[in-house]
Amino acid sequence: MDIKPGIPQPSLSRLPLYYRFLVQASELGKEVVSSEEMGQALSLPAAQIRKDLSYLREFGRPGVGYAVNELLGSLEEFLGLANDKEAVVVGAGRLGQALASYPGFEGYGLRIVALFDSDPAKVGQEVAGRRIFPLAKLPNLVARLHIQMGIVTVPAEAAQAVVDAMVAAGITVIWNFAPVRPHVPEGIWLQNEDLAARLATLSYHVVRHAGKQRRELAGSGRS
Amino acid sequence: MDIKPGIPQPSLSRLPLYYRFLVQASELGKEVVSSEEMGQALSLPAAQIRKDLSYLREFGRPGVGYAVNELLGSLEEFLGLANDKEAVVVGAGRLGQALASYPGFEGYGLRIVALFDSDPAKVGQEVAGRRIFPLAKLPNLVARLHIQMGIVTVPAEAAQAVVDAMVAAGITVIWNFAPVRPHVPEGIWLQNEDLAARLATLSYHVVRHAGKQRRELAGSGRS
Repeated sequence: MDIKPGIPQPSLSRLPLYYRFLVQASELGKEVVSSEEMGQALSLPAAQIRKDLSYLREFGRPGVGYAVNELLGSLEEFLGLANDKEAVVVGAGRLGQALASYPGFEGYGLRIVALFDSDPAKVGQEVAGRRIFPLAKLPNLVARLHIQMGIVTVPAEAAQAVVDAMVAAGITVIWNFAPVRPHVPEGIWLQNEDLAARLATLSYHVVRHAGKQRRELAGSGRS
Repeated sequence: MDIKPGIPQPSLSRLPLYYRFLVQASELGKEVVSSEEMGQALSLPAAQIRKDLSYLREFGRPGVGYAVNELLGSLEEFLGLANDKEAVVVGAGRLGQALASYPGFEGYGLRIVALFDSDPAKVGQEVAGRRIFPLAKLPNLVARLHIQMGIVTVPAEAAQAVVDAMVAAGITVIWNFAPVRPHVPEGIWLQNEDLAARLATLSYHVVRHAGKQRRELAGSGRS
């Protein structure tokens, strides 16, 4: 969590949306797109898009727009999408299996090469063509293949030990789906993807909305 | 996307972390916690925690800390965790099945009551005790049970039609895992959970880190 990138995280998180939009535009044979067009398609303000893209380098001609293929190339380079990246998944439960077979990742240059699980009943099975290995094999495989990314889909109580094992094996970027926030040493990039916590923020909106509906119903009943 | 809550989204997204910490503290019999303690456990600045919690209402005594059970109750009320909420999942593939059986949700009052899929081969099966129904049954079941939340785990090309069907059926809060940004009418809360886009931002860190390592190796080689 200690790498300080030059681009703010919210801007960084929107770049993949632009990338996907541009891939489609390119496939449709478009050569130039405006920030207004992108904004309309992505429900984002055009000024926001121009600002986000300005982190790449100076781009776009006012009143003319962005050259689709040029911008695509820059985004690929900036996001590192052209490089092939390999990752392992630790935790071969339903979520781990879902991620291992998620079709959207390959477009971003990610290949999940193996899954690991501590359950002997799962070891040896295959998920979408990837083998499930025993946890003890993690250090060797990660070191041998120079794997840089680890995806954690184990229960909360096992997460810290798995993260520690990943770091010890040489993994530097960790995507954690366990509902805890593991500690990592300096220089390791950890992204927590806490689905239950995300759900709780949605819960807030469900309740707010239900309250609004009740008030509206009460209001219309009185009128 | 047009509901404007009084609390900023980043603060809202941290409240579940505090909630989980306090549940554990309460189970351990703790009666009071300080923002410093919470900050240390969650790797967050104590000042940030105090600011986030100030959106609930005036809380905490300087130098004394937060009363665990009082704060727990306020968080439950604020986040609507005490209310039972029911949701449906549309798309009974691996990700849909993973979410339907995700154990973390029940602690936040969410019950996934049914899955829907357009694949006749899946219809009639059960996932973690929930039945998979044909898509055509969605409007009836959602209206009859007054379901407010829909979870979308269909492929990109099917997502807009599924979101439209959910909105028509009366769903007001949508959690979308398809890698597109569907359009929704005013008053509907849509949260996009784009795993591939999230992956792309991690890709950025993998490449940055690999570059740094190469430079370090090159540097040590010269010395």
